[in-house]
Amino acid sequence: MKLYEQVATTVKDRIDRGYYREGDKLPSVRGLSQEHNVSISTVQEAYGLLIDDGIVEARPKSGYYVLQQQAPPELPETSSPVSQPLVVAQWQKLQHMISEYGSGETTKLSLAMPDMNTPTLKPLIRISAELSRTESLRILNYEHANGAAELCRQVARITIDSGCRIHPDEIIITSGCQEALSCSLRAVTEPGDIVVVDSPSFFGSVQAIKINGVKALEIPTNPETGISLEALEMALEQWPIKACLLTPTNNNPLGYSMPDENKLRLLDLLNRYDIPLIEDDIYGDLSYTLPRPRTIKSFDTEGRVILCSSFSKSIAPGLRVGWVAPGRYREHIMMVKYLASLSTSTLSQLAVAEFIAQGYYEKHLRRMRKNYQRDRDAVIGWLKHDMPPGTRISYPQGGYLLWVELPAHMDANELNEQAKREGISIAPGTLFSASGKYKNFMRICCVNSDNPKIKQAIKTLAQICNRMLNENLLPD
Amino acid sequence: MKLYEQVATTVKDRIDRGYYREGDKLPSVRGLSQEHNVSISTVQEAYGLLIDDGIVEARPKSGYYVLQQQAPPELPETSSPVSQPLVVAQWQKLQHMISEYGSGETTKLSLAMPDMNTPTLKPLIRISAELSRTESLRILNYEHANGAAELCRQVARITIDSGCRIHPDEIIITSGCQEALSCSLRAVTEPGDIVVVDSPSFFGSVQAIKINGVKALEIPTNPETGISLEALEMALEQWPIKACLLTPTNNNPLGYSMPDENKLRLLDLLNRYDIPLIEDDIYGDLSYTLPRPRTIKSFDTEGRVILCSSFSKSIAPGLRVGWVAPGRYREHIMMVKYLASLSTSTLSQLAVAEFIAQGYYEKHLRRMRKNYQRDRDAVIGWLKHDMPPGTRISYPQGGYLLWVELPAHMDANELNEQAKREGISIAPGTLFSASGKYKNFMRICCVNSDNPKIKQAIKTLAQICNRMLNENLLPD
Repeated sequence: MKLYEQVATTVKDRIDRGYYREGDKLPSVRGLSQEHNVSISTVQEAYGLLIDDGIVEARPKSGYYVLQQQAPPELPETSSPVSQPLVVAQWQKLQHMISEYGSGETTKLSLAMPDMNTPTLKPLIRISAELSRTESLRILNYEHANGAAELCRQVARITIDSGCRIHPDEIIITSGCQEALSCSLRAVTEPGDIVVVDSPSFFGSVQAIKINGVKALEIPTNPETGISLEALEMALEQWPIKACLLTPTNNNPLGYSMPDENKLRLLDLLNRYDIPLIEDDIYGDLSYTLPRPRTIKSFDTEGRVILCSSFSKSIAPGLRVGWVAPGRYREHIMMVKYLASLSTSTLSQLAVAEFIAQGYYEKHLRRMRKNYQRDRDAVIGWLKHDMPPGTRISYPQGGYLLWVELPAHMDANELNEQAKREGISIAPGTLFSASGKYKNFMRICCVNSDNPKIKQAIKTLAQICNRMLNENLLPD
Repeated sequence: MKLYEQVATTVKDRIDRGYYREGDKLPSVRGLSQEHNVSISTVQEAYGLLIDDGIVEARPKSGYYVLQQQAPPELPETSSPVSQPLVVAQWQKLQHMISEYGSGETTKLSLAMPDMNTPTLKPLIRISAELSRTESLRILNYEHANGAAELCRQVARITIDSGCRIHPDEIIITSGCQEALSCSLRAVTEPGDIVVVDSPSFFGSVQAIKINGVKALEIPTNPETGISLEALEMALEQWPIKACLLTPTNNNPLGYSMPDENKLRLLDLLNRYDIPLIEDDIYGDLSYTLPRPRTIKSFDTEGRVILCSSFSKSIAPGLRVGWVAPGRYREHIMMVKYLASLSTSTLSQLAVAEFIAQGYYEKHLRRMRKNYQRDRDAVIGWLKHDMPPGTRISYPQGGYLLWVELPAHMDANELNEQAKREGISIAPGTLFSASGKYKNFMRICCVNSDNPKIKQAIKTLAQICNRMLNENLLPD
């Protein structure tokens, strides 16, 4: 253990034992430095670590304090979707939403966009400009069909943090996670097949299921522990299920990470029924606490887990760089990816590889984890304060999305229409279900809560909700 | 008509009337300038135009000469594929070939790669580096789901040269032409359907057909006029065909452009049978003569032609920027593309848009057309000289691919194996057929014929062919 880690452990230990309580001021840097006989910078590093871990906060010009843990919000209940395979609907609504990308002045709480204004992304811009010059011939050319060797190496390295041991040659680079998911689905299913999904579920995967002519079977999902294993087992007994598509870590939209125990039990079930798992880990690296949760892939000894991810949420979506660790389905997925788009933008691949290799990804994640946790707490605080009674809110452990249950009978599609007139958009809950459930739910993105526009947008949303409720109470 | 065009027309007229014959020296710049009473630079521009049109050549330190037209080679005959819908085979061989991308020291005549060392691509590199800095926030972000507005505008402008009038809002940007073709196919067919293709046919489309669970019906194709319309009509009567996928201009691998008359008759047939056409125009802009041939899309009044193309062959494949002009299938193709990969690399899109807007694309094409025609003539010359008797060669009017028919009973797969041992790869003909026909054919890429390695590679190939033939003649 390094010196600063020792100091951090001592302070954490004292907090755990109740020496210092939430909101208490902690010893000064100078004081700790004398107590432990270490340098000022060692103590600063120790406090940095505790801040990263979400235990301590720094208040400018005042010092370090034990972080006040907000009481978690009241969570939505375990979902109870239609227990039958369905052809996915809702494309029109999704189309409506995606027509917003990159346009206008709307405050788009609807889109899951990372913070791209952060100084920790500056090196990526510099690297991209440099590569344009130094690797000019290479970036004009196709990369290896499975991806640039440098990037595969870095991706393999990153997955070690989630407990995996993947050889770089196994990795297939894709144009974002959507291509990873879509190609994986196409490789393990045929039209007419049934695929199991958690519910609510990311609309991109739900619609990709639809477009492959496959039916989705939604399984009840708990906002803290994820997919109900009991319901899943019943479904596996009842239906000829061909694959399972889940986001077990920092789930979109619910924010939970399945406990390791559940991940293991799930894998056991899939082994027994001999079914592949497509594991969407796109928010996995954005866990607020370290070490980040393990992927189900990391427990897999049979090559049945197809791990899909990308740098769209952890770095930036405009790069279009994602990847698959395809396990035993490598050859088939490789073929599908090749015939879908041959290869992925060479410059994007090399830029991301260099960004990680030079240590900037790690630095960037460290900052983002803290910021996104701060954003979560701020936005949950405002929602609790302003939204009508009966509102329930998810309590994510990573990422930057909130799943909000509005009072029953409220229609989030209508809310979205009214909000748009005031320059705000949300993602209506029905998008997250094959059967159009979750009418009174919305997903909102809570990045950049320090921008007053975000606070104002949440206030406006709450006002509209209250207005809608009052109008409903009026006699006809 | 501009002054220099008038001068050029006069010179061309004299050549046409036989005043000057092939190989004759033409009047000096000074002489013409005095004759027409125009400036030296106007005459130089006039000669530039005639060079671009492939009528005149400049010999350094000597002057301008009427270009010696090589006698066209003996062409392969009209193909006669299996006249039955088939599930496409040959994936393993293709996999073998694509594993070569970007690797090793092999002279890859197998891959259809443009010249990327040309100075006319330098501005693209500069633009890409500049955009990384000046548009840093934008390139990190998603673009509009259908593509960057600037790029859609430029694509719409380019298609005017092929006779089209397409509104920028109709264009959908894709990750290369492969994604354009693959999404178009998925939008207009369902598994089990039959799609008509020309034969031989680009392996990327043939395999995309396979992976969509669709069957390919190969139609006899003439190396000068393209798909046999008689055979196509018979097939339309006999089979429930759902779509037609063709490369009517600067065909890959045959190099022909269908005459306008045939394009019109084809469209008429498709109108009568109410069938969509996926028109692959990826080599269209690389026609040796101007104006470039019209697309079938340009004749289409019913929105049934889906025009697919990209900048992979005309600029560089590593960018992964392609596009679709989807006609009446816009909404469906848009959905398929969105669910396949959301959007396309933002930096690549903006860089290509700027490259075209600043006039560099036009300049680049002008140079490439000339170079690729020179490459064609050089490589055909070597092949005629060195290959065994009975060899037939296509005579492309654009692009940089040659389709070579080897003496009957020769196996191009075996040729490829033997060539690889000497550091050369070719694309065996069987890749270009759903049924594995064209065993004694190969496709070779003839870019950069001024590089001595290319001449040497052709010589080596010919030696191997002659050796293989001799071995076959030996008694067992």
